[in-house]
Parts: sequence; structure tokens; C-alpha cells
Amino acid sequence: MDATQEYLQRRDQLVREDRALRVDASRLASLTDIEAKAEAVVRATRAVEADSVWGTGKSIFDYNPIDSTPNVFPGMAFLTARETVTKTKLFQMLNKMPKGALLHAHLDATVNVDVLLKLALAQPAMHVRAPARLTTSNIVATLPEFKVLSPGAFSTSSSLTDSTYIGGEWVPLYRARETFDESLEGPVGFDNWVKRALTINPSEAYGTHDSPTKIWAKFSSTFLTCHNLIYYLPIWQQYIREFILSSIDDGISYVEARVNFLYKYMTGPDGLENLPHREWLIIFDRVLNEIKAELKEQGRQDELIGVKLIYTTIRFITPEELEWYTEDALALKQEFPHLIAGFDLVGHEDSLKPLIDYIEPLTKFMRRREELGVDLPFIFHAGETLGDGNAPDMNLYDAILLGTKRIGHGYSLVKHPKLMEICREKGIAVEVCPISNEILRLTSSMPAHPLPILVNHGVHVSLCSDDPAVFGNMGLTFDFFQVLMASEVTGLLTLGEFARDSIKYSMLEDEEKAYALGLWEKRWLEFLEWVGRTGDE
Amino acid sequence: MDATQEYLQRRDQLVREDRALRVDASRLASLTDIEAKAEAVVRATRAVEADSVWGTGKSIFDYNPIDSTPNVFPGMAFLTARETVTKTKLFQMLNKMPKGALLHAHLDATVNVDVLLKLALAQPAMHVRAPARLTTSNIVATLPEFKVLSPGAFSTSSSLTDSTYIGGEWVPLYRARETFDESLEGPVGFDNWVKRALTINPSEAYGTHDSPTKIWAKFSSTFLTCHNLIYYLPIWQQYIREFILSSIDDGISYVEARVNFLYKYMTGPDGLENLPHREWLIIFDRVLNEIKAELKEQGRQDELIGVKLIYTTIRFITPEELEWYTEDALALKQEFPHLIAGFDLVGHEDSLKPLIDYIEPLTKFMRRREELGVDLPFIFHAGETLGDGNAPDMNLYDAILLGTKRIGHGYSLVKHPKLMEICREKGIAVEVCPISNEILRLTSSMPAHPLPILVNHGVHVSLCSDDPAVFGNMGLTFDFFQVLMASEVTGLLTLGEFARDSIKYSMLEDEEKAYALGLWEKRWLEFLEWVGRTGDE
Repeated sequence: MDATQEYLQRRDQLVREDRALRVDASRLASLTDIEAKAEAVVRATRAVEADSVWGTGKSIFDYNPIDSTPNVFPGMAFLTARETVTKTKLFQMLNKMPKGALLHAHLDATVNVDVLLKLALAQPAMHVRAPARLTTSNIVATLPEFKVLSPGAFSTSSSLTDSTYIGGEWVPLYRARETFDESLEGPVGFDNWVKRALTINPSEAYGTHDSPTKIWAKFSSTFLTCHNLIYYLPIWQQYIREFILSSIDDGISYVEARVNFLYKYMTGPDGLENLPHREWLIIFDRVLNEIKAELKEQGRQDELIGVKLIYTTIRFITPEELEWYTEDALALKQEFPHLIAGFDLVGHEDSLKPLIDYIEPLTKFMRRREELGVDLPFIFHAGETLGDGNAPDMNLYDAILLGTKRIGHGYSLVKHPKLMEICREKGIAVEVCPISNEILRLTSSMPAHPLPILVNHGVHVSLCSDDPAVFGNMGLTFDFFQVLMASEVTGLLTLGEFARDSIKYSMLEDEEKAYALGLWEKRWLEFLEWVGRTGDE
Repeated sequence: MDATQEYLQRRDQLVREDRALRVDASRLASLTDIEAKAEAVVRATRAVEADSVWGTGKSIFDYNPIDSTPNVFPGMAFLTARETVTKTKLFQMLNKMPKGALLHAHLDATVNVDVLLKLALAQPAMHVRAPARLTTSNIVATLPEFKVLSPGAFSTSSSLTDSTYIGGEWVPLYRARETFDESLEGPVGFDNWVKRALTINPSEAYGTHDSPTKIWAKFSSTFLTCHNLIYYLPIWQQYIREFILSSIDDGISYVEARVNFLYKYMTGPDGLENLPHREWLIIFDRVLNEIKAELKEQGRQDELIGVKLIYTTIRFITPEELEWYTEDALALKQEFPHLIAGFDLVGHEDSLKPLIDYIEPLTKFMRRREELGVDLPFIFHAGETLGDGNAPDMNLYDAILLGTKRIGHGYSLVKHPKLMEICREKGIAVEVCPISNEILRLTSSMPAHPLPILVNHGVHVSLCSDDPAVFGNMGLTFDFFQVLMASEVTGLLTLGEFARDSIKYSMLEDEEKAYALGLWEKRWLEFLEWVGRTGDE
């Protein structure tokens, strides 16, 4: 063996040692023929498209001072890449991949805004208003406000754009749309106005609101705006249904959705805001069972293991107020043990209260949990920040000390060698939300995302969509796609490990989990075979 | 002790364990009064300015759809922050800090472009041309080209903007400036035209060229443009002098500068390109000794320990061509052992040849080095990339296997647990270039930079400016400033450890190093005392 060969052997050995902690390390060490073929097909497709779709064809010796071509590259900013992504062969492949579980998504942002608007337009009780008559000069700066009125209080106002509209009066939603003035592009202009308020667009994320605080202002506003559309029982039950069915369509077979229980009541069919949390769960359970029955009828029961909810409230409540919510969560868990998977505090970590502020009610909750013998674990958001040693970064210490089962985001976890070690040893997985992190300006693009650092340090991860209705990353395919484009180490089999881990680190009972994993393995094998066959075409 | 107190103790313990590998861990464990006071002053100043200078005053509940305020935050993108940075109290404090050594800077981009232009304008032999007459419509798209002509060949052309200028003819530099047309803003317009070609401006970095490949095209073009300005002996000797003196002014007391030896000759006073590398070193040595003598005369000899050079050539040469350079470097090291500190290969890692392509000439060089008994270590650039497992990321394995003494950039090192462990154990420090990484689009801002990950994993770092003439981060103060603003863990004493490490991990001989450290400690103590006193004002 010559010196170069000997060097290459040492190099291979070092690379192996460096990657030894990765979740895919042992699998990649010995592949089946089916795995090897599918992996090769995906890598080849990626390599071709990295150039044909995402390459600029330019070299660093082609400087053009007045360059006006787009700044295109693999894993580039999602909102400008989205349309191109959907057209790629790689995306179409991943679309068919069985994704396992979706472990981090906020229910209020999980249904496509087109669908939500359609659901709302069908409700005569749904009204909309603006602070002043909408015109071409104020429409961009004006947000819609929605509200369900009681049957007796339905409005007779007919338009948001008519000269008779003074501002502030409620207009029935469908009528506001129909009468939207032609100068504002009529009903299409109305739809765009509403959708703009419910989503983040590229000029905001990458232009006017390109800082974490500013984009969070926009992000928060989408939730404030959509709340009254969603929390109206006739819509909510269809909304849940749509969320579950569209998840199944994307290859997701199990979900743990975070539900915002901050508001104590939902609006009922009578227009009164009086449905308490236990009613929400009764309805949720009913919709879920209906879907399961339908799937069974269609022989598709294996496509959905189930859906559970993570109880959440928002990090701006006082520690005293938190006690009401923890008691509420305990009561719901006792009544619906199969539906509630965990407890979390959500909201903008950089500006809201850190976990340490709630340490007393949280430790009290832990004692109560034990007294009652209720298994209601913490699944905390923590470290969703660019900060180093600031309050949200410090949340990671508290989440772990309080016994969190997983970490939501954990974007700053990579800064913490001891905490990564604990996650590795205690099996605390991280719910990584790639596209969310990019749009909320923690990273400028996927190649700059810390995911590979976590993975190489042996921390288990599950890829999640977070708020797909706001970001446009419906399902999990987009997030899997961006992750795959941004790394040469990550291949299809790595994505498979992430999917496997999403089930392994779910809150399913051991028996359910084993069953879910078995079903997933079966679908995964079929998928790999299919991917392999596309390579023969 | 109640439950909360007990919790807080466990939390403190965990934080300590998590930070145990940090270079500042033992120092922070027991501070002198002087250290504690200076640290407190800096932290207080930072906290005030984080709000008064870098705060938007906005909350996430203040969404304005037509927001046109700037996207301001601590550690924000440098090119738009620069002017504000210089006005802060924190910057003015750090400006006085003894910085230790500058271990990563490319000589060709170390002198302020205003100064370089002034040096060039004083040379009658320096000429400039453009491919066509410059007008308001083509000036932005046109780059200047410079060249020294021999005395007999001086041009009589008088203007780049006159209707008689056909394009391509050389015009004496000073005359081109004087005759620059008023419609192009006269001499000031000329200066701006030249400076635009030698620097990266915010609209390029954050707009038209906002991708790693595109910004590197601009970046490379600045080097191609300035080469003929700098590599003319009458300018070069003043250029070196300016670089060294301005470094001293910024509190830098020792430098290891990377010199591009790709071109085999420099242009001499006679206008002929015939000065070989050993002549460069003779001149360099003379200028350095002159400066040392002047400093001694002024009683300032302690401000400059020395300047050494790292021999570099560019990663686009063939492996065969590399052998010429390694032999050249060995010969220079033998003749000027006190001047040459190491050997490196530079250039855009994402698109040029990886180290593995040069494995044969590099291992041959290692054998030759041993045969000759010459101590000429590798100090490789590696991992200056967003890639994961791509060729530049893999350069890290090769740099380490080949025995690099430090790593230039090592931006992707944080992905490699085993390599970080080796760096920690073998004392391989990383030359981190914060502002360079941001302008070259590896990170969108300092808070997103991986520096804290390296530091918390116990990897030693030295902060460096890389190419300050192109980026506008002259000296080291700007880089120290950005790092300090982007982390709550990092304080003044952490910066002090970085400065200390820059000397410890330099290529100084043990005795020189001990001497340099002693001088630095003395200045550091004086600086801390001064910072503390500013807190009393």
C-alpha cells in the first residue's frame, strides 16, 4: 500500500469516528440492495438538480457589477424558492415518502389559508370589518378583523369598499367578498387581502421585516387575525378534519399537535363564546373517530395511527394565571387520557417570559401530577433564539431540568455541549423546524441551519413544519426537501431515520409505538422500492 | 433551603458544567477587583446601547404592514451598521483594547482603500484604463484596470471621460482623476469609482450579490483589480508600512499576514515586472526594521513584537505547479527563517480545488521539510463553507491529518465533534473571521455565527479581520465589537482570553511568545484599569 492509499484509509477512519454518533451511522454501515439503490437514485437526482435547477452556472470569476439575476442556490430561502421546489423531481419523490409523525405543529396554523377562507365564507354568521373604508391607498396597511355574530345580530352592511362604509361596522364575510370593489380587484382582491394577513410573504421576511423581532410582529399578527375564523365550532370541526386529512395525504401517519388553550371558550353554533375546553376535546375526539371510521371503510386504516394534542398556553400569562391552566390540563388529561400528550408554554421566547419565571407553578404542577398519578409530561419549546446566554437560550437548562420529554426547536442547543450530552443520554429528541427557523430569521437559508451540528453530535431529531399555513410549507415534504438539499452527508436514508425517530420519540404508548413503527417500516420499504424503480426509467 | 433555592443551585451547577470547556471558565471563576469592575462597566454599557442604539423599541405586538424602519438589532449586518458602530461608547472603549496578535489577514486587503489610492496617485508611472469612455450610463458596470508603465512608455492620454477616449488606452492615474468629468462628479466621482471596485458595498452584499457564489465573484474581483496597484515596489513598501502602523494603532502588537506568492514577480521601480519573491522579503524585512527603529526612538518598542508572513498560493494551481511553490517556500524559509511563519493554500473553497487534490505534493513537501530540517508548518484555510460533507467541509479532515497548526476560518468545524475534540487536545486554534464570514454570506449577522459553539466546545479561537480593506473592518476593533454585541455569555474578559490566545497560538518561538505575553498582560491590566475608571465618570 502506497502512502496515498494509507492516507486515504486514515482519512476514512477519521470521517467514520467523526460521524459515529449520527443516528444513521449504523444503518449506513451495511445497506440492503434496496436501500443502496434508492439512496443512489436520490443522490443522483439531487446532484443533477443542484446544477440544473439551483445552479447559477456562474463562477467566482464572473463578476458583474450590475447583476440582476436571482440569488439562487440549493436550500435557498424558502419563500422565494417554493414554486421552483414543487416542480423538482426530488420534491415529487419526497412527497410520496412516509413521513412518520408530525411532532411540532401549532393547530391554529395547520390548514391552508385558501381552505380556511372557503370554510369561513360558507358561514353566514362570519363577519369582517376594517377600521375605515378600504381603498387602493390604505388596503396594504389595513388588516381585516373577523367575528362571529349571533343570528339576531347579523349585519346589513354590504361592503367594505363602498363609499357608505364608515369603518368599524361588521359586514357578512361572503358579502364583503362579493362586493369588493373592482378597483381593488374584486373578490380576488378580497381573497388576497385576507390571505396576506394570514401568511408571511417574501418581501416581508426578506425585506421590510427582516429581523427576528419584526418578523415575529407579523407572525403574531397572523394568529391574532385568524383566531376568530378558526375558533367557531362549525368551522373548527371542519378545520380539524382538513388538518388531519391533509397530513395523511402528505404521508404523515401520526400527529401531536399543539393546541392553544389560552382562550377559555370557543364560539358555539349560536354565536356565543361559551364552549369550554372539554367541549373542544369531545368534538376533536368525534372528528378523529369519524376519520378513522372512514379510513377503515376505505381499507386505509394503516395510514393514520392517531392524533394527540399538546396542551399549550402562552408565555405572557402571570405565574399565578399559569396555575389555572396546569389544573385545567390535569383535568382534561384525566378525562381524555388518550388525547392529551403533554404540556407546553409557547410564544416568542426572545420577548416573553422565560421558563424560570414560572418555576414555582411548574414545580407545583409536577407535585400535583405525582399526587394524582397523571402522566402529563412537559414538551417544552426552548432555545428558539439566536441569543447566547440570553433568557430564551437559558430556557434550555430549565426545560431539561424540569424533565422535558422533547425540546421544541432547540435552535440554540448546539451551543451547549453538556446539554447535548444529556439529550443523547436521556433520549430527549429535538423537534427541528427548518423552514420556520428560516422564515422567522434565525437562519438565512437551510445550509446555514444548525441541524447537521445536532445530528453529528448524536442528538435525535424529528423534522417539523411548525406553522405551515403561515409559512406555506404544508405537510412535511417541504421541510424534508430543504434539509436534503442543504447537506451532502444527509441522504434519503438519513431522512428515513428522522421519520423513524419521529415515531420513536413520540408520546405513543409502547405498544402503539411498536405497532406504528411496524406499519411505517412496511410503507418505507415499499417507498424505497418505488424510488429504486424510478431510477430504472 | 426551599425547593426553588435548591432548583437554582442545580441550575447553576448545570450551567457551570456546560461552560466548563470554555477558555474563560477558570478566569471567570475568581475575578480580581479590577477585572470585575471592567467587566461590569462593559456589560452595563452594552446593555444600555443594546437598547438605545440597537433597539427598535418595538414589541412583537406592534405589527405594521408598511413598516419602513431599518431592521436594527445588536450584531446586525456590518456594512449597514458600521457608521453607527463607530459612534458607540462600547466601540470607543474596545478601540483602546490591546488586541494581541492578528493571525489571519490577507496582505493584499489590509490597507484602507483611501490610503492605497493616495499612494497610487503619487506615482507618475501608475496608469488606469477602461474598456470604453466612461459615462453616467456605463460607469457603474465598468471596472478600472491599473498598470505601471515603464518611464519611456508613459501615456499622453488625458482622460477616461473625454469624448476623445476610445477605450483601452492607458491614462496616468493622477491625470485620469483630475480630468474626470463633472457629470461624473469630477475627482470625487473618480475616487468613488475606484473605491467601489475595491470594496464590497451593502447593496451588493445584502441585495444583488446576496449568495455565497455571487459575493465571492465580487470579492475576487477586488483582488484582481487591486493587484497592480499594490505589487509595484514604490507602493508596496509604503503599503506594508501603512499596514503595520495602522495595526499598531488598533492595539495589535504582532501579525502573521498571509502573502499571495502566486505571481512570481513584482513590478520594480523601473516598471518591469521582475522582482522575485526573495526581493519582496528583503524589502519587507527592511521596512519592518525601520518601523521597529522608529518605535524604539519614540520609546514605543513594546507596541510591536513583530510581523511574520504566511506563504500562500491559490487553490486553482495544478498539483504539479504546487511543487514549485512548496520548494520556493522552503527556500525562502531557509533564507529568512525569522520572517516565514507557515504555508497555506487560499481562495474560494466552495469552487476551487480541495486539499485532497494536492495530497501528493503536500505529503512530498512534508518529507522535504523533514529532510531539510526546516520548520515550515501548514496553517491551512479549511471549512470556510456552509456545506455539510462537501469538498470544503472535508478540507477540515485533511487540514488536521496533514498537521495544520491552526485552522483558517473553520466555519464548518462545529459540525464535527471528533475534529473539535482533536483541536482541543492538540491545541489547534481556529482563526475566526466574524465580519468576513458575514459579508461573504456564511452568516446573515453575528448572532447567527457559530463562534459560541466553538468556544463552548473548548476550541481555542483568535478573532481576525481577514480582508479589512474590502470589508471596511480595519484593525480588530470591529470584529471584537460585533462578537461582544452578539452574546450575553461573552464579556470583556472573554475578549481578553481571545487576545491572549492569539499570542499563545501564534508561531512565535517560545521565548518570544513569553515576552509578547508579558507585554500584553501589562497593557491589558492598564486597559482594565482605564475601563474601570470610565465607570466612575
